[in-house]
Amino acid sequence: MPDISSAPSTPQQAGRGQAGPSAEPATSLVVGLDIGGSKTHGALWADGVLVGEARAGSANVQNVTPDDAARNLAELFRELTPAGGADVAQVVAGSGGVDTAGDAERLRGLIRPHAPGAAIDVVHDTRLILAAGGARTGIAVIAGTGSVAWGVDGEGREARSGGWGYLLGDEGSGYWVVREAVRRTLHRYDAGQQPDDLDAAVLALNGVATPTELIGLFHSGAGRTYWAAQSRAVFDAARTGHAEAGGIIERAAGDLMQLVLDVVDVIGLPGPVVLGGGLAMHQPDLQARLRYRLSDRGIDDVVFLDRDPVMGVQFLVADSGRAGR
Amino acid sequence: MPDISSAPSTPQQAGRGQAGPSAEPATSLVVGLDIGGSKTHGALWADGVLVGEARAGSANVQNVTPDDAARNLAELFRELTPAGGADVAQVVAGSGGVDTAGDAERLRGLIRPHAPGAAIDVVHDTRLILAAGGARTGIAVIAGTGSVAWGVDGEGREARSGGWGYLLGDEGSGYWVVREAVRRTLHRYDAGQQPDDLDAAVLALNGVATPTELIGLFHSGAGRTYWAAQSRAVFDAARTGHAEAGGIIERAAGDLMQLVLDVVDVIGLPGPVVLGGGLAMHQPDLQARLRYRLSDRGIDDVVFLDRDPVMGVQFLVADSGRAGR
Repeated sequence: MPDISSAPSTPQQAGRGQAGPSAEPATSLVVGLDIGGSKTHGALWADGVLVGEARAGSANVQNVTPDDAARNLAELFRELTPAGGADVAQVVAGSGGVDTAGDAERLRGLIRPHAPGAAIDVVHDTRLILAAGGARTGIAVIAGTGSVAWGVDGEGREARSGGWGYLLGDEGSGYWVVREAVRRTLHRYDAGQQPDDLDAAVLALNGVATPTELIGLFHSGAGRTYWAAQSRAVFDAARTGHAEAGGIIERAAGDLMQLVLDVVDVIGLPGPVVLGGGLAMHQPDLQARLRYRLSDRGIDDVVFLDRDPVMGVQFLVADSGRAGR
Repeated sequence: MPDISSAPSTPQQAGRGQAGPSAEPATSLVVGLDIGGSKTHGALWADGVLVGEARAGSANVQNVTPDDAARNLAELFRELTPAGGADVAQVVAGSGGVDTAGDAERLRGLIRPHAPGAAIDVVHDTRLILAAGGARTGIAVIAGTGSVAWGVDGEGREARSGGWGYLLGDEGSGYWVVREAVRRTLHRYDAGQQPDDLDAAVLALNGVATPTELIGLFHSGAGRTYWAAQSRAVFDAARTGHAEAGGIIERAAGDLMQLVLDVVDVIGLPGPVVLGGGLAMHQPDLQARLRYRLSDRGIDDVVFLDRDPVMGVQFLVADSGRAGR
C-alpha cells in the first residue's frame, strides 16, 4: 500500500506565516473532512478549538461522479468557511477508496480550490477512526455502508484487510447485511416457501409485493446507502428472536473479526481495536457479538466510537505537532 | 413466479392467414431471439427451415439502457429481415431478467415495431436451453456471465433457483469466477504476500501493477462481460495445477450443482439436466467437476449443449404446434 499519509503536501504551506511584523497574529485554521460513501462531514478548528461543523453529500469519487463530489465539497466549504478558505492552514481529509497515490492526488485537487493556501493531507478514513479513539497505534475498523480494517504499529508498519468495495467485499457492512437478507428472501421464494416476518419487512421497506421484484430494484440505481439503511430490519428481526436474522448478524460479526485477525497476522496487535461506522456505533447486538468473538481470541481492548470520526483530525494534527518538535 | 410463457400474445396473430384465395400461399416466418446479458442472438425460420442468423448487442434492459436495447434490436432485425418484419408470424424471445409480467410486456414493446403482425412470446432464457437440448421437461442451467437453474415437469409445474443478478447472486458464473480470483489477489496483497501466477495473470489482463488498482477498476463501468471474459485466466491456471484456481472452479461447480438440487427439491427431476452458457459449454474442467458432483447425487442424465440456445425456438414452436393439434 502506498504511504498516502506522507505524500507531499502542497508547496504553498512553506509560504504561510511570513506576513510582515505589522500583521495581527494569525489564527491557525484547520479543516477536517471525513469523506464517507454517502456523506461528507467537515469540522473547523481555530487554534485547536472546534468552531464549526458542516455536512454535505459524499465527495468520494468511488461513490459519486467527480462533478457531484466537487459540488458537495463546494457546498460544505461554503458552510464551514463562509468568508472563503484563504486562511485555512491545513486540511486533513480522511476518505475511503483512496488506495493509490493517484487517488490521493485527485482528492487533493478537488479540495485545493477551497483552501488554496493550505497543506492538504489525505489519509485513509480508517486513520480517522483510530485517532478519534485517541490512539496512535492499534487497529481501526469501519463497519458502516462498507467495511475495512486498518492497523499501524509503533514503527509505522501498516496493514489493511478489506475495504474492497461492495462489488468485491464489504462483508459485515450494512449493505452486506441487507443483501444477505434479500438473498434469503429470494432463496425462500425459489423454494416455494411463504414469506416470513423478515421477508415481509424487506418487501414492505421496498414497497414491492413479490420477491422477484427485488432483483430489478437491487440492480437499479437505488444506491448502496438506500440498501444499507434497510439493515435495521435485520437487527429488528433478530431482536424479536428471528434466528436467521441473528445468523446474518453473527456472520457479520465473524467477518468483521476476520478483518481484525488478518491485520493482526501482519503487524500483531499494537494497540486497541477501535470501531466506527454506523453499524459498529449504533447496533448493540453487533457490538456484543463482536466483543465476545474478539475476546475469545484474546483481544479485549475494544472501543466502539461514540464520537464522529472527523474529531480524530484534531488528534492527528496535535500528534504531528508533537512529533515535529 | 408469474407464468410468463403463457402471457397473452398480440391480438394481430388472429388476423394472419386470411388473405384472399388469389394470394400465393404464405410462408410461415418465425424469429427466435436469445437475449443474453452481453449479446442478442437472432435466428429466422421459413416454414421450419433455418434461413438466417444475426447477432447484436444485448437487448436486456437489466444490462443496457432501454435506448441501447432498442437500437440493438433494430440492428438485429435489419440484418435478419432486410425487407422488414411485416411477414413475421411469430417471435419467440428468451431473455434473462424477465421476472414479472411487466418485464415481459416491456420486452414485447421493444420487439413489436420490428414484427408488427407477429405473435410475440417472451420466455425465460432457461426455457430456450431446455428446448435446445430437445427436452420438454427437465432442468435447464445457464452458467455464462450469470447463473440460474429452471425446471419444468410434465404437469407444467415450474421451479427456479438463482438468476438473481450479479449484485445478489450469479454464483458459479464467469463473473463470479473472476471476482473470486480478484478477491483472492486482494486478500493475498493485504496479507503481504508476493503475487503468484494467478495474481500476475489477473493484474496483466487488466494492465495494472498493484492489486489495489483492481478495486477502482472493478467498480468502474468496465461491465460484467469484461470481467466474465477474464475467467479463462482461472481455468488456465487450474489446468497448470494451480490448486486455489482449481478450488474456485470446484466451488463454482458446487454452487451450480446446488442450483440444480434446489429445483429438484421443489419439482423433483422430471428429465435431463441441460446446461448452456459460455462457461458450461466451453470449459471441460467445469463440466467434468459438475458431472461428477451431480452423478454423486444420482443425477446422470446431464447434457452440456453444443448448439446455440436460440435453436431451441424451433423445438418450442414445433412443440406448441403439436400441443395445439
